[in-house]
Amino acid sequence: MAKRELQPRPLLYPVPLVLVTCLDEQGEANIITLAWVGTVCSTPPQVGIAVRPGRYSHAAIQQTEEFVINIPNRELLDAVDYCGRVSRRREGDKFAALGLTPLPASRVSAPLIGECPVNLECKLTQSLPLGSHDLFIGEVVAVHVDEGLLDEQGFIDYSKAEAIAYLGNEYWSLGKRLGSVGHVRRSPSVEHLG
Amino acid sequence: MAKRELQPRPLLYPVPLVLVTCLDEQGEANIITLAWVGTVCSTPPQVGIAVRPGRYSHAAIQQTEEFVINIPNRELLDAVDYCGRVSRRREGDKFAALGLTPLPASRVSAPLIGECPVNLECKLTQSLPLGSHDLFIGEVVAVHVDEGLLDEQGFIDYSKAEAIAYLGNEYWSLGKRLGSVGHVRRSPSVEHLG
Repeated sequence: MAKRELQPRPLLYPVPLVLVTCLDEQGEANIITLAWVGTVCSTPPQVGIAVRPGRYSHAAIQQTEEFVINIPNRELLDAVDYCGRVSRRREGDKFAALGLTPLPASRVSAPLIGECPVNLECKLTQSLPLGSHDLFIGEVVAVHVDEGLLDEQGFIDYSKAEAIAYLGNEYWSLGKRLGSVGHVRRSPSVEHLG
Repeated sequence: MAKRELQPRPLLYPVPLVLVTCLDEQGEANIITLAWVGTVCSTPPQVGIAVRPGRYSHAAIQQTEEFVINIPNRELLDAVDYCGRVSRRREGDKFAALGLTPLPASRVSAPLIGECPVNLECKLTQSLPLGSHDLFIGEVVAVHVDEGLLDEQGFIDYSKAEAIAYLGNEYWSLGKRLGSVGHVRRSPSVEHLG
């Protein structure tokens, strides 16, 4: 297959789309949609979220040193799209605009989004200015999962997650399960990917 | 929906699976499958990859300060699984074992994987020890895309990408395109998510 060389860009796919909640200095909650997010460490559990310094949530996260990653499902696609393009400065309270339910978190002050099936409470540990974006690294201090997403053993059943993937500027659904780690060789020494 | 609180973990989904290539100190190429990867900055374009210090590729990337992110398609699922679980120390040359084609890169010495439809050449800019993993941040210095993935305008047609998503320890295909950024409101001021 012939290849074409394109301008350098951070072309990764598929990536997650998350709704990040935080509190501003008045204690008001905000929501921002982010796709430049990822796991950066398993132990202690840490995630990275890249946020433009001009965004309303950027100052809030820096001040409070807290945020919550809320993973949406397909029912929340309109909210995902809205919270990625609209600023609180102009449009006000996004929880109210979208009819979403703020729930109290266990370990941080920022609220969970009740409608999101998975919520990760995070405490900011590092902030790295990289250019257009700052990378906020947060330790995951609590995890909440909808009961309906768990199987009898308490594991997440991803066939029920109705996850949204982001490719380019497009939202995609997931298709089918193709296998799991170790499906090629029956080796017992499965190392975690990463 | 009732929620259950689980042990803190970096529970993000869906995430990409990539094959990262690098050269060791003998100039031999290696391949490692990683899922803890993400975009961390748009300008300059930068990506982060989390690698355990014990992995063979960890030392190689630190020494050469280079790596290539190769994005696989479904045809490469066995290679993805193999390269995530097998070490070069034990099993030797993974290009040879899998019959993959190393292609010369433009800006780095590590090879591209010819069979992967997208290749991002990266130069290491920062290395952050975080615990079980070190986060390597790389600037994307060249991008290669299979001609067959591009539409007439030169944009990527993700319906042809046959992308693999990773959820928990499961490999999933993508389903269908649900929309694109801005599908909710016809605002012209589309901000990039991130």
